[in-house]
Amino acid sequence: MIGDGMGVTQISAGLYSNNNQLNLERFPVVGLHKSYSADNLITDSAAGATAFSAGVKTYNGAIGVDVDTLPVTTILEMAESAGMPTGLVATSSIVHATPASFYAHVKQRKEYEAIAADLLKTDIDLFIGGGAKYFERRETDTRNLTEELRSQGIEVSSFVDTDLKKLKVKRAKRVAYYTADSEPVPFNQGRDYLVDATELAMDFLNDRDSLNKGFFLMVEASQIDWGGHSNNSDYIISEMIEFDRAIGAALNFAQRDGETLIIVTADHETGGYAINNGSVMGQIEGAFTSDYHTADLIPVFAYGPGAEQFSGIFENTAIFDKMKLLYGFSKR
Amino acid sequence: MIGDGMGVTQISAGLYSNNNQLNLERFPVVGLHKSYSADNLITDSAAGATAFSAGVKTYNGAIGVDVDTLPVTTILEMAESAGMPTGLVATSSIVHATPASFYAHVKQRKEYEAIAADLLKTDIDLFIGGGAKYFERRETDTRNLTEELRSQGIEVSSFVDTDLKKLKVKRAKRVAYYTADSEPVPFNQGRDYLVDATELAMDFLNDRDSLNKGFFLMVEASQIDWGGHSNNSDYIISEMIEFDRAIGAALNFAQRDGETLIIVTADHETGGYAINNGSVMGQIEGAFTSDYHTADLIPVFAYGPGAEQFSGIFENTAIFDKMKLLYGFSKR
Repeated sequence: MIGDGMGVTQISAGLYSNNNQLNLERFPVVGLHKSYSADNLITDSAAGATAFSAGVKTYNGAIGVDVDTLPVTTILEMAESAGMPTGLVATSSIVHATPASFYAHVKQRKEYEAIAADLLKTDIDLFIGGGAKYFERRETDTRNLTEELRSQGIEVSSFVDTDLKKLKVKRAKRVAYYTADSEPVPFNQGRDYLVDATELAMDFLNDRDSLNKGFFLMVEASQIDWGGHSNNSDYIISEMIEFDRAIGAALNFAQRDGETLIIVTADHETGGYAINNGSVMGQIEGAFTSDYHTADLIPVFAYGPGAEQFSGIFENTAIFDKMKLLYGFSKR
Repeated sequence: MIGDGMGVTQISAGLYSNNNQLNLERFPVVGLHKSYSADNLITDSAAGATAFSAGVKTYNGAIGVDVDTLPVTTILEMAESAGMPTGLVATSSIVHATPASFYAHVKQRKEYEAIAADLLKTDIDLFIGGGAKYFERRETDTRNLTEELRSQGIEVSSFVDTDLKKLKVKRAKRVAYYTADSEPVPFNQGRDYLVDATELAMDFLNDRDSLNKGFFLMVEASQIDWGGHSNNSDYIISEMIEFDRAIGAALNFAQRDGETLIIVTADHETGGYAINNGSVMGQIEGAFTSDYHTADLIPVFAYGPGAEQFSGIFENTAIFDKMKLLYGFSKR
């Protein structure tokens, strides 16, 4: 689970805006990762997510490709090869840098239509996120990827026709759900699907895991980052608290299940965010040094089998290495 | 070991200014503590250190006293009662808030002469820090505390007469060493004793521990905080790297010894420090939101027996609770 732009201050602000409690406190193991990319001490979300998804430091802007722009196999693709159900949930469009880095292989993050097309090359079992227009009203070609998804046997629905809370999924059918035509709105403007989507995704993927091999799910709280970019403390906090509720739902699943590892981290910090003097519990005086990312070490939280692997300080790419080791996937 | 004002950004800046390596990476266990005090979401060093030393949240400015200004027994005092050697090392004056909170009980941190007088009420075996004037040229009374220390059988020396690197200590005699008349200068103005003092203190206290009960030592890198207050990134980084070397020395001792728990943390973050875009490895573009402290969750690192207790998220007071539990001290 990735809180985009969620540094230690974003977590602290969420904590102190939520009665001094977060589900993050339920994690027994904490680590810190080094977020820098191959070409910049300050990573972007594309290189940051590719480090997690494929274990390589690459250049800022790279989606699932290495410094030579060659495709790198992702943990989601490895899970598919191993016969495990896979899924992606995001509060951005599903073609945005973080989710994209788990399935697409393109040179630049802005190639949204190419990224969408790459999603059809996977056997992904579920995705929930915005960006319907990159599938249905494309500028670079005349394909209708929604229809192509349906022809692959995927049950596609969207915010236009179905409330996510009422979405019925069947174990037999792969699922796609568009939460917005382009980017979903912020939580405090009415978007509130992350908790429901996380629960639905975990239950669905677990049901699909008929061979009991396990599953892979990436959940991104995308807009903590956008709150940082807009230097808006309230935006950060509301997104952070929604993310923490989704984390709580995931932990509840993992506690019941007993076989699920939950990892929570961020790609980088955004905003040089600080909780300045004058703040009180429940009323944060946020301040910022930047409208871009910073180079802070980033907290990592782990719960479940193998969690102890995520203690200490390590490179962001080690998160991929540790996941791969724990899944038992062989070398690329 | 306390890096005053050392939030996650201070650590990150030290790391990326030191060839991407720190001794902090040798710690197997990481936690995060909640630094707020009893009367402010943004703690000061006095309340922050009293939380560590005595396990109580108190008001900002309080030195070893609770919210009702009543004295609270400190971990150093408990160690003394248990017959263990104790020591304090700081790169500030020894009467400054952080070291003071381990032995003094005064209502306000600025009562430096009262704090110095409280040091004579302890059985401390070693202290190394600045502030000779608060012992020798007092304004509130005519006592000469240096002479009183000597009459207690303590070997007192100072930067005036003895280079710390050449200081000979004898197991039979308690040791006091003044590193400055008031506050020591910054590392990058020539102060460089923290590593030597840490090694000397650990070896000395270990030698004094003739009953093999263990010892207690608090080491503070005081001026990471002052670099934050002055919004001076280079100041922070040089103090941070010196602290990390002292941490390395302590870890080397603990690795040889096998029975020593090392805990590294900070009281709070200072400056709302951030590593802004434009930074590169070895060249940090520091930026600040404040010349005071912030409310960030603070990293905790632990190595040695009982280290696993310091994982997860907890209150700053829990550090005292865990130390007390691991030492086996009974209730206050």
